[in-house]
Amino acid sequence: MDVIRSLLNQSEGKIFLLIFDGLGGLPDPATGRTELETARTPNLDRWAREGATGLVDPVGPGITPGSGPAHLALFGYDPIRDNVGRGVLSALGAGLKLTSRDVAARINFATRAADGTIRDRRAGRITSEEGRRVAEILARGVSIPDAEVTVSAEKEHRAVVVFRGDGLAGNVKDTDPQHTGVPAHEAEALDDASRKTAKVANQFVEQARKLLRSEPAANEVLLRGFAGWDPPDSFEHKFGLRAAAIAMYPMYLGLARLVGMRALPQMPSIEAEFDALAIALENNDFVFLHVKQTDSAGEDGDFARKAQVLEEVDALLALVNDAHPDLIIVTGDHSTPAAMRSHSWHPVPILFRGGHTFVDDTTEFGETACRRGALGRFPSCYILPQALATVGRLDKFGA
Amino acid sequence: MDVIRSLLNQSEGKIFLLIFDGLGGLPDPATGRTELETARTPNLDRWAREGATGLVDPVGPGITPGSGPAHLALFGYDPIRDNVGRGVLSALGAGLKLTSRDVAARINFATRAADGTIRDRRAGRITSEEGRRVAEILARGVSIPDAEVTVSAEKEHRAVVVFRGDGLAGNVKDTDPQHTGVPAHEAEALDDASRKTAKVANQFVEQARKLLRSEPAANEVLLRGFAGWDPPDSFEHKFGLRAAAIAMYPMYLGLARLVGMRALPQMPSIEAEFDALAIALENNDFVFLHVKQTDSAGEDGDFARKAQVLEEVDALLALVNDAHPDLIIVTGDHSTPAAMRSHSWHPVPILFRGGHTFVDDTTEFGETACRRGALGRFPSCYILPQALATVGRLDKFGA
Repeated sequence: MDVIRSLLNQSEGKIFLLIFDGLGGLPDPATGRTELETARTPNLDRWAREGATGLVDPVGPGITPGSGPAHLALFGYDPIRDNVGRGVLSALGAGLKLTSRDVAARINFATRAADGTIRDRRAGRITSEEGRRVAEILARGVSIPDAEVTVSAEKEHRAVVVFRGDGLAGNVKDTDPQHTGVPAHEAEALDDASRKTAKVANQFVEQARKLLRSEPAANEVLLRGFAGWDPPDSFEHKFGLRAAAIAMYPMYLGLARLVGMRALPQMPSIEAEFDALAIALENNDFVFLHVKQTDSAGEDGDFARKAQVLEEVDALLALVNDAHPDLIIVTGDHSTPAAMRSHSWHPVPILFRGGHTFVDDTTEFGETACRRGALGRFPSCYILPQALATVGRLDKFGA
Repeated sequence: MDVIRSLLNQSEGKIFLLIFDGLGGLPDPATGRTELETARTPNLDRWAREGATGLVDPVGPGITPGSGPAHLALFGYDPIRDNVGRGVLSALGAGLKLTSRDVAARINFATRAADGTIRDRRAGRITSEEGRRVAEILARGVSIPDAEVTVSAEKEHRAVVVFRGDGLAGNVKDTDPQHTGVPAHEAEALDDASRKTAKVANQFVEQARKLLRSEPAANEVLLRGFAGWDPPDSFEHKFGLRAAAIAMYPMYLGLARLVGMRALPQMPSIEAEFDALAIALENNDFVFLHVKQTDSAGEDGDFARKAQVLEEVDALLALVNDAHPDLIIVTGDHSTPAAMRSHSWHPVPILFRGGHTFVDDTTEFGETACRRGALGRFPSCYILPQALATVGRLDKFGA
């Protein structure tokens, strides 16, 4: 990928990347058509006719990606080498802004028996409201010399803690023992640079136990996925593109920020996302727009709703034409087949429309058509180099 | 591939891998159809309709694999990095069980002139019966202090020798000079750890010459492919699958044993192989069943017989349904087109049927149909990760 950077030129073609979270699906046995193939999407189909299609593999054969590695690959990064620690991903998901002085860790609220052993690693799966309440107790009550502590609830029994201070590093062993009937581990530094973090984490756990001692369920915190903020080379440095991100959920803005993209304010609706596109594209070379609802419908096992979200977004795509990108790319971060109610490893449809795209004979945007498209099948991390080439931003390699 | 191991969960889906040795072929110019496309295989075609198809590349573009690397790739190993020395492969082929105290080498029986030079590197291609007779002379007659020696005939002028003892290592140069008119080389250690092996090998050659001095053709032994027994990480460790192998020929059971699979007793017929499947699958998570006869027919240049073997096996496939695997995979270790009378580098048809396979629009199992299937074209070593994903045995990578 260092080759790509050496080939960047001064061309100015603008690229729009539309991501349907969890786009790929599996065929409905009754019709043989996937969610995307079932939805009526005249605008996407037209782009597919006017451009080229293919399939992308987010991480590798058989690997079901989480949102972190899946988006890093879409942004042209190596999803395994550049993968982000769980603590950092949780912090991004909670909308926290991290600095190089921070170490983040995922919290599981748990239930601790009188003898100090863990009785329930998920505190009886307390509600999200309960989770927020106990996270708030910690946020207000914990006070550690030399480290600023931020606690933010995620969902149910999950929360995130960020320790900010000088001399903190993220190489600390989980305190979560992964089993019940045993006590939590002490936080333990795995290198010298992380000693202070381990000490701070143990102080945090000790204070949390005191603050939560009268809680019936969530009277213990288990920490895992300690990670410092060690962002990879910026997107602009790697690919020469000023970039902006449009999304409704903090994690995706956080992932964009991780690679140095400008994050637009969190949008209240899909319509608002598309309304923001024209100005974003005017001020940037690359705009990433994230649609979450396809993934949510897939995770709920709702085939019809996933197809409906696709139809609703399709109806907004005139706004993309109005913004005049030189290249439109539509794909997903991974598949989320309604039939599986979860992310999956299946390759994801992609289309390129504009620039020097090889216009193929695809007539609709769907998994089966994409399998035969001119883009072929390739790892997601190669979308960016091909996008740059398609808008003329890459010079020849070698004389 | 280390990522795969970190994602293994506790799910229990069972996988059946049916290997037709040398499955891939080339089209008959008269009909445009390959051996597989010519054979009437209603059961394989039905699985292709109910599942997805694709093409696999055993080692790499243009590389024609031997059985060793081809099977290692099918078992999810790197066929180049994890390749096995020729001596070990010969020993496995002879059905010998190796230990970490063993070094194996391939023997070529040769003809030595009165002046000590090699006159014929294959001893006039003596018959297999002759080969067995002279191998037996060595097996009975050789006696070396500090090393136990096993000699076993292969085919014609080929045999294998295994040296067992303390302090043996396999880094020894071939004694086969690869030319006639020159004497055999001395065995020469290429590192300190292999000095004793070289000494033992030279004692073996010296005694062999004495024992065979009155033989008219096979009065010399040439050694090559010295290799110690250094098996890779076990299949169960890498993929979390208890595995069993069913085959009619010792080499394939040996290759399975190399990666720690249980080898069922050598089967007398293809029918017996399929009869053994149900119980094997009951007691294991993964069963590999090897059909040799397709390769033998291909190597004989017998297009019609290769097609006929495929039809005969197809008729037995009801026994697979009776064994209720969660995922059926059918493919080959490599292509053996009858037109070439040899292994080839051409990609090999594959089908997945069951689990969360993307059911595509394939209607028959054959090279041309597979080229358009939903599995796409990929290296054989990625069959395993995708199989694990398809039966739900892999967790998500990253949050």
